[in-house]
Amino acid sequence: MSLARGIDPANHRELVHTVKALAMDAVEAAKSGHPGMPMGAADLAVVLWTSFLDHDPSCPSWPNRDRFVLSAGHGSMLLYALLHLSGYDLPLAELRRFRQWGSKTPGHPEFGHTVGVEVTTGPLGTGFAAGVGMALAERLLAARFNRPGREIIDHHTYGIVSDGDLMEGVAAEAASLAGHLGLGKLIYLYDDNQISIDGATDITFTEDVLARFAAYGWHVARVDGHDPAAIAAALTAAKAETARPSLIACRTVIANGSPNKAGTSASHGAPLGAAEVAAAKAAMGWPAEPTFHVPEGVRARSAAAQQVQRQRREAWELRMAAYRDAHPELAAELGSLESGGADAAALAAIPTFAHGGKQATRKAVQTILNALVAAHPALVGGSADLAGSNGVVIAGEPANSPKNPGGRVIHFGVREHAMAAIANGLALHGVRPYVATFLVFSDFMRGAIRLAALMRLPVIYVLSHDSFWVGEDGPTHQPIEHTMALRLIPDLWVVRPGDARETAGAWRIALRRGVGAGPTAILATRQDLPVLAESREEIDVGAYVLWQPDGDAPLDGILIATGSELAATLAAARDLAGRGVRVRVVSMPCWEAFEAQTAAYRDEVLPPSLQRRLAVEAGSTLGWSRYAAHSQGIDHFGASAPGPELAERFGFTAEAIAQRYLALPA
Amino acid sequence: MSLARGIDPANHRELVHTVKALAMDAVEAAKSGHPGMPMGAADLAVVLWTSFLDHDPSCPSWPNRDRFVLSAGHGSMLLYALLHLSGYDLPLAELRRFRQWGSKTPGHPEFGHTVGVEVTTGPLGTGFAAGVGMALAERLLAARFNRPGREIIDHHTYGIVSDGDLMEGVAAEAASLAGHLGLGKLIYLYDDNQISIDGATDITFTEDVLARFAAYGWHVARVDGHDPAAIAAALTAAKAETARPSLIACRTVIANGSPNKAGTSASHGAPLGAAEVAAAKAAMGWPAEPTFHVPEGVRARSAAAQQVQRQRREAWELRMAAYRDAHPELAAELGSLESGGADAAALAAIPTFAHGGKQATRKAVQTILNALVAAHPALVGGSADLAGSNGVVIAGEPANSPKNPGGRVIHFGVREHAMAAIANGLALHGVRPYVATFLVFSDFMRGAIRLAALMRLPVIYVLSHDSFWVGEDGPTHQPIEHTMALRLIPDLWVVRPGDARETAGAWRIALRRGVGAGPTAILATRQDLPVLAESREEIDVGAYVLWQPDGDAPLDGILIATGSELAATLAAARDLAGRGVRVRVVSMPCWEAFEAQTAAYRDEVLPPSLQRRLAVEAGSTLGWSRYAAHSQGIDHFGASAPGPELAERFGFTAEAIAQRYLALPA
Repeated sequence: MSLARGIDPANHRELVHTVKALAMDAVEAAKSGHPGMPMGAADLAVVLWTSFLDHDPSCPSWPNRDRFVLSAGHGSMLLYALLHLSGYDLPLAELRRFRQWGSKTPGHPEFGHTVGVEVTTGPLGTGFAAGVGMALAERLLAARFNRPGREIIDHHTYGIVSDGDLMEGVAAEAASLAGHLGLGKLIYLYDDNQISIDGATDITFTEDVLARFAAYGWHVARVDGHDPAAIAAALTAAKAETARPSLIACRTVIANGSPNKAGTSASHGAPLGAAEVAAAKAAMGWPAEPTFHVPEGVRARSAAAQQVQRQRREAWELRMAAYRDAHPELAAELGSLESGGADAAALAAIPTFAHGGKQATRKAVQTILNALVAAHPALVGGSADLAGSNGVVIAGEPANSPKNPGGRVIHFGVREHAMAAIANGLALHGVRPYVATFLVFSDFMRGAIRLAALMRLPVIYVLSHDSFWVGEDGPTHQPIEHTMALRLIPDLWVVRPGDARETAGAWRIALRRGVGAGPTAILATRQDLPVLAESREEIDVGAYVLWQPDGDAPLDGILIATGSELAATLAAARDLAGRGVRVRVVSMPCWEAFEAQTAAYRDEVLPPSLQRRLAVEAGSTLGWSRYAAHSQGIDHFGASAPGPELAERFGFTAEAIAQRYLALPA
Repeated sequence: MSLARGIDPANHRELVHTVKALAMDAVEAAKSGHPGMPMGAADLAVVLWTSFLDHDPSCPSWPNRDRFVLSAGHGSMLLYALLHLSGYDLPLAELRRFRQWGSKTPGHPEFGHTVGVEVTTGPLGTGFAAGVGMALAERLLAARFNRPGREIIDHHTYGIVSDGDLMEGVAAEAASLAGHLGLGKLIYLYDDNQISIDGATDITFTEDVLARFAAYGWHVARVDGHDPAAIAAALTAAKAETARPSLIACRTVIANGSPNKAGTSASHGAPLGAAEVAAAKAAMGWPAEPTFHVPEGVRARSAAAQQVQRQRREAWELRMAAYRDAHPELAAELGSLESGGADAAALAAIPTFAHGGKQATRKAVQTILNALVAAHPALVGGSADLAGSNGVVIAGEPANSPKNPGGRVIHFGVREHAMAAIANGLALHGVRPYVATFLVFSDFMRGAIRLAALMRLPVIYVLSHDSFWVGEDGPTHQPIEHTMALRLIPDLWVVRPGDARETAGAWRIALRRGVGAGPTAILATRQDLPVLAESREEIDVGAYVLWQPDGDAPLDGILIATGSELAATLAAARDLAGRGVRVRVVSMPCWEAFEAQTAAYRDEVLPPSLQRRLAVEAGSTLGWSRYAAHSQGIDHFGASAPGPELAERFGFTAEAIAQRYLALPA
């Protein structure tokens, strides 16, 4: 993959200086930012980008490009400088507008915002885990689609990670799983600068990082992070290691090149200041003016490299064309994956559920998922050690492992945060991940869920055991605030289906939300629920009239319910009707979908004239005042007891709901 | 500490069988639960409890007792059996009511609910981290209060941890920090049964756990977990190791003693079934009936042990009395710590802030915290590598380390989840922790915050950079949904002060919430805010009338604001008054405190007759409909740009607020 294996020291130095100067200038112009990391990591980044990274700036979406993850996202100017200098569509004018409104150079790299940025990073550790997802996707797709002599998917995932990344638990979880899976084409450079924000890392981080990673099953190495030949040799060795992921600790000096601030935490998160920038430029023989200076030699060598990169990508296109001829069906399937969304065949594969009988919505999830696997080849996922409980066991599908690298079932282990962050990497690499755990443990994943929403990735979260109906496991396992807390995340859609039929609808919502829309959480019950005759299997409207008494007499009010409260609420409304109180029941499985409807539709479902309303949901009431003046919910922690007993005590029987409605103030 | 160092094999076996039979019987009676872990770990737990754990069941609150953490909380019946058999106030009748409403034996152990339970566990990994907090508190208090020859604080923290615990990132973070800090009196037994819910651990967890912990700086060992002598020897060696925490991997067989289900994941989370229980009892020579059988010999030996335990504790009481005589001031200070809450002196030490000028509320936090350190000796805490940014730098207070074990400043590193979980352990051990990070990273801590709330621990979270005003760092660092998401957690109080004066009030709220009330989050700004003449320093009422136009003419409506929006909202109201629109401004820094007020007070602040209301808060609008029909908030992700520009674009200038009010529907 090397473009220039023989590194010319002078050329290397000039490019490194260019990167450093651009970073200093941009941070000065913005009057904020992080100069230390780009300067300290410039040597290793330049070696990686000039001599290893196989990409084509003229075709950023080339599927077989190497992926690059800047997990230490605060060093964004390092990435922007490299993107600019490599020929991506990121002109100097954008670098001059670093961290300004509407620029392509925000404070932390944002996927979908800046061409060439592979993943949004900043929250430490999550980029590390996303890279694991990318490497897993690469191996998975290679196993499924490559044929002897036709290795159309064959690339590396590289990254630069920091002390902070390696302190975070999400990275630890992901590293353990990457080691277990033996992701040999994942190669991280650890910018080991021994400085974090509060000072030297030895105030809190004295573990033997390389020994830890060796224990995870990683190939590890240590090099001088300012010695380009050593860095290149370590990268070459890492590429030669195909059975284990690699961590190369590169001892660097933060803000290397700054005469007075190098090696200090002062250079981490603030501009160096005009005087120090001048001193640094002088020390490296760089012109003080103009700022944002790029030497002609750097431009010329970049242009030559881009030519080579384009040729390499075009050679791949030829191989891909031959692959298409040889394996048209595989090629079509691969193409369907790359388009991201689910097609009509996948949607059609979702089974229907006859009304009558009872089943837990997690069981419906399992039925749906098993039907989808064949029809939706992009679907890949698993659970954080709760597959059976969550309803995501796929019959006959062996788990992904080094021996079965094409397996579409992933045993994530009890590693919820990494699971969600790895899912982001999977989605970024074009597969369609679903990941599962108990709803209460969505707390552990929020950081990564938020990033999925920010990147608008089509990740599906299956979150079962979605209320006090968990029962005996008690308050640590009973979600109370979680449903509403998920609704708070922008661009995440939350669907809480009321029975098996609505569960089918939930999957339709999730699958229709393609790339660019965002993630979807499907909340499922542990306990059985009646499959209603009144419910719908198409719930894209978000909320609809489930039932109301016959006849034209005016209605008294509305009961709004979601999920496991739907059947009891329907029974309550029927009971009320028997007492002469005419109440409509609205099923509202998805707030976000409902709010996307026209005002006319919303007013039809929830007529403004009918303000006597009670919302019923086994969770926090906060937020329900948006739709109903009153709500039957739970604003305290749960308790350990059988679910039906809790339903009695917490007021979620049909009788309790009816009584509550009758007791509403006039 | 050993009560019976020479382990009698027959006595050991009888007690182990009793524990196993109680666990099987209780799970059968409940028709749910986890028999596998209690049976597999019975040998090691019995060795620990009979020969090492120094406690006094007749005085569960003895300050110098060894702490025991069952991090694998699903094995709760192991703990309940041990508590019962050791003489704690947990009669057999409670074991018979395992997992039933109102029993003292909920599905997972709950601190504050069952005497002898040191910490609520269940969410894996968090118990591990809480134990680190306990061990840290022990060492910290020992360093501060012990005097030569008067080691009144000198005990161990023991725990049993599972595969699942060790897969969780929160435990990894905590383990790294525990190794760094050299917490030599922390000793964990790893129930290495090679089984998790989805099957054998080798499907996802093949790392070298002991090598990993050695890399963290732990003392590690491996033993046969069914060999009591080997377990005892390993525990003795771990106690002899005083500079490093210890992890003893005990190879066990899950559901050991169950002829057909031992060693299988089927025994993890479901009753064995009557036939298998009968077979297990037969195999160990146990009577099938009666259930919940406790042999006389077990009772007798327990009674004898309790006698010894009481004597040991009483001997400590004598030493403590001598300590009180020798060091009356230290003893008084220690006593004040143990009472938990802040006293009048601490409250009085909170500085006042004159109005005028501007300062960030994080700066006010720093001023307050530095004033509190001397007056509130229980206060201990730190930041996840953002001390300077969060405003929690304590002048002149060196950090806690092996060389300075009494240091009250803790460098948690970039380990937010462990920080919050360790804070729980600190609080459980009687110190008053404050922990700090950016508000956006409260997502990483939610699991542990929820447990603090469930345990009603007086942890204080300092969460700075509390809105888009973060500015250039962009959407990954700008909280949107976090303020409201925290308000959703039951028993957590969230205070978002509007200036330095209200920040003082926020600390008063936090300090007054003593043990048994719950945690408090204080949200602070990065940016400067005017210190208002109209604001209050006592905000225990949660919300109050900040300002309204003079005169008796009727008001047109109400503007409700929190935090950084308070000053702009006040300016908007003054501007409106200038235009003849008379609007009241209500400052509402703490919803929970406001809701604890009388209806009369609440109606006085927010008169029901005044329904023209606009709530102004730089965060999610969801939930504000509780107080105001309209709200000026942000329901989308932020952007990278200077804060003032974002305020213009997002509508948070005084002018935008005034215009929004004027545009409200009539």
